[in-house]
Amino acid sequence: MQKRKLETCFSPALFEPEGHDNSIVVIIDVLRASSAICTAFANGAASIIPVAEVSEAKEYKSKGYLVAAERNGFVLDFADFGNSPFNFTKEKVSGKTIVYSTTNGTGLINLALSAYMTVIGSFLNIGALTRWLINLDRDVLLLCAGWKNRFNIEDTVCAGAIAEKLMRSNCYTTICDSTHAAIDLWSLASPDLPAYIEKAAQRSRLRDKNLDDCIEFCLTSDFTDKIPVMKNGALTVDML
Amino acid sequence: MQKRKLETCFSPALFEPEGHDNSIVVIIDVLRASSAICTAFANGAASIIPVAEVSEAKEYKSKGYLVAAERNGFVLDFADFGNSPFNFTKEKVSGKTIVYSTTNGTGLINLALSAYMTVIGSFLNIGALTRWLINLDRDVLLLCAGWKNRFNIEDTVCAGAIAEKLMRSNCYTTICDSTHAAIDLWSLASPDLPAYIEKAAQRSRLRDKNLDDCIEFCLTSDFTDKIPVMKNGALTVDML
Repeated sequence: MQKRKLETCFSPALFEPEGHDNSIVVIIDVLRASSAICTAFANGAASIIPVAEVSEAKEYKSKGYLVAAERNGFVLDFADFGNSPFNFTKEKVSGKTIVYSTTNGTGLINLALSAYMTVIGSFLNIGALTRWLINLDRDVLLLCAGWKNRFNIEDTVCAGAIAEKLMRSNCYTTICDSTHAAIDLWSLASPDLPAYIEKAAQRSRLRDKNLDDCIEFCLTSDFTDKIPVMKNGALTVDML
Repeated sequence: MQKRKLETCFSPALFEPEGHDNSIVVIIDVLRASSAICTAFANGAASIIPVAEVSEAKEYKSKGYLVAAERNGFVLDFADFGNSPFNFTKEKVSGKTIVYSTTNGTGLINLALSAYMTVIGSFLNIGALTRWLINLDRDVLLLCAGWKNRFNIEDTVCAGAIAEKLMRSNCYTTICDSTHAAIDLWSLASPDLPAYIEKAAQRSRLRDKNLDDCIEFCLTSDFTDKIPVMKNGALTVDML
């Protein structure tokens, strides 16, 4: 069997869509969009419509949609709630379609639409996600949301954790320096992930805004087996 | 004393010039532009004019300049020699002005011209460079050349080695995830740097083209105490 190609991209600004028409792109925004999306589906959300612009989110709100929207960590005034996974409770989201707009993560989902498939990855669904990827015979690109186009540590170590599991399956090959670096950083982070993430700038940003209550949760492996997959403009759930 | 800011940028595509008017930008292209430039000055070159475009290099050649120019590792036909540090011998470069154009590194030097100062960093001048930086009271940005805008391992671990020395001086502070990651990767690479670099894509590229004879040399610390500084369109040498 020919091995599939595994690549990692540390920032939306480094993403080259043209090389990935036949790949599965995994969007990683650990703090907090990816984690919130996985939590929403774990709590029974029917679908999530990711939108990049505030104006789009506002328009959906005026049409009666449930809207989760934040910029720089804070809930937008017209939105029903913001970006913390703890907002996406069963009571609020079960059976619902949610329109979702964040500073980094949701714009990125739409950036990767030319890929064969776009899915959401986080620590929360890491086991199910890697089994699901291994089950499909496709090249994989791990696409980190970063922060305002910059490299960030938490998405990188999550990419490293996913990459390490994929490489261990023996189905993938990589000549991508970012993948090697992500795996190596994961090897340093994995013995005590919350302690390692202490140095992340986003860790400090969320602490400064009193928004860091969800961090420990976001770093928890295997909270759910749901795989959020982008189809016809909305995320819905796929499972093995 | 207020601490200076230390930042790292993993790719020219992630470089934001506007934030760095008052910073010293250190250009790092270990394999091979930074290493070749440091070697040229160690061997007595008077100055180096970095040019981004092949056409510019050709024009200089027609005016009688000594020209070093490569694309994707190979010497351009009109050039006197290419990108290996071993080309920049005393016999060829002593007292001379060299026009230099490479795939990645030399374009980047001109990209950072709005910075307070642009200097060339490599393992070859790492000790002198870090002492020289510590001696100046300026913020520092370590700017990795990468490969065709992608993250690469060899420039990152060199940035990590420089960053680790600067942070140890206690004169700098950083809230930059890239800097933390670079230092951590350096901590993994430093016990056996050539072995660590084996996984770098550029390592394989140079091996495939039989251009890898210089790699061990490029990973050698403190071959020279020369600091190549960009001034009025050319690199000349500064020392402590």
